[in-house]
Amino acid sequence: MVTSRWTAAPARAASPRRRGVVLERAILDAALEQLGEVGWKGLTMEGVAAGAQTGKAAVYRRWPSKEDLVADALAAGLSRVDKAPDLGSVREDLLALCRQVREIMYSPLGVALRSVIHECDRVQADRFQEVIVGGVVEPTVKLLGEVITRGIERGEVRRDAANSYVLDAVPAMMMYRSKMCASEWRDEDLVEMIDQLMLPLLRPHGG
Amino acid sequence: MVTSRWTAAPARAASPRRRGVVLERAILDAALEQLGEVGWKGLTMEGVAAGAQTGKAAVYRRWPSKEDLVADALAAGLSRVDKAPDLGSVREDLLALCRQVREIMYSPLGVALRSVIHECDRVQADRFQEVIVGGVVEPTVKLLGEVITRGIERGEVRRDAANSYVLDAVPAMMMYRSKMCASEWRDEDLVEMIDQLMLPLLRPHGG
Repeated sequence: MVTSRWTAAPARAASPRRRGVVLERAILDAALEQLGEVGWKGLTMEGVAAGAQTGKAAVYRRWPSKEDLVADALAAGLSRVDKAPDLGSVREDLLALCRQVREIMYSPLGVALRSVIHECDRVQADRFQEVIVGGVVEPTVKLLGEVITRGIERGEVRRDAANSYVLDAVPAMMMYRSKMCASEWRDEDLVEMIDQLMLPLLRPHGG
Repeated sequence: MVTSRWTAAPARAASPRRRGVVLERAILDAALEQLGEVGWKGLTMEGVAAGAQTGKAAVYRRWPSKEDLVADALAAGLSRVDKAPDLGSVREDLLALCRQVREIMYSPLGVALRSVIHECDRVQADRFQEVIVGGVVEPTVKLLGEVITRGIERGEVRRDAANSYVLDAVPAMMMYRSKMCASEWRDEDLVEMIDQLMLPLLRPHGG
């Protein structure tokens, strides 16, 4: 097996330099760094190669275009929301989950991601939006479902609450106020949203 | 009074061409038409002047830049949401209001507005976003407040429901699903949102 790999890629086998995953990781890291420093328009394949201390060909071999490279760099850099908090009450679980989302939204990477979307053209923006949807929005909705389902099991939440409109309410509000009101979602804002919007929405009818 | 007006603007008074409001309206209409046909990047002051059958100077005299012209053209073209429906129940009023918002969002102007925001740079996009906020979002939130307040008076809606989180829920959901899920908000989607999200959120607790 090893022999056949060398045969398939003789050029790489002959090189003493970093290969495969290690080199890829260095290139993706350099791309994120460039993105933070010079933005989407300033980022070049040459600059990324220099940052990763490799040649331009090593970058182009893996990513045929700047768009491909940046999409992978952003996806790799997103620390995903992947654990549903389980603190014993739907109020505490929602608050913990909203804090996780806020952390991603306002991390240097989240900020870079939003400015990339603003800087580039429509087709590119759509592609990077998919990175946000797949990396942040969909995992968040899934975890909200878990939190609400546990609330139903505890009798805290009405039985018909786990529908797609209820699940979308938190990401919709967080996106909307961040975009339209430049809200930074301080802790007291999250608490207010949960107490004034989510708990009235979730509580058992007549309970 | 008439005399002093002529004295203040002798150049215009001497011209037999359209003046003032009439010419302005023709220029704004031509700008909207161009925007729909060639988009933000393709629109030129020359093209707008030609469309309005006037000279470039007449356009520049009123709007020093393309941004100024387009912002005014969009604002003038937006058919504002300005009447709260009053159909006797909060469910029917919400549905009627959501239909009004959808009509603006998916009108040729609304579509042009969103593509302008996508096509132009961040500073320009922020400016045009203000047109959306002032022309659609804020009036909608105000009318939602009226609808919910009437629901409270009728005893249909809990007394503490008219808070900013509840009022933002409809525009937040409409923006979010239009952007993230490419929803076109068919009538059945609006009905579902009202029945699954808004009515549970609004009904009196224990009522």
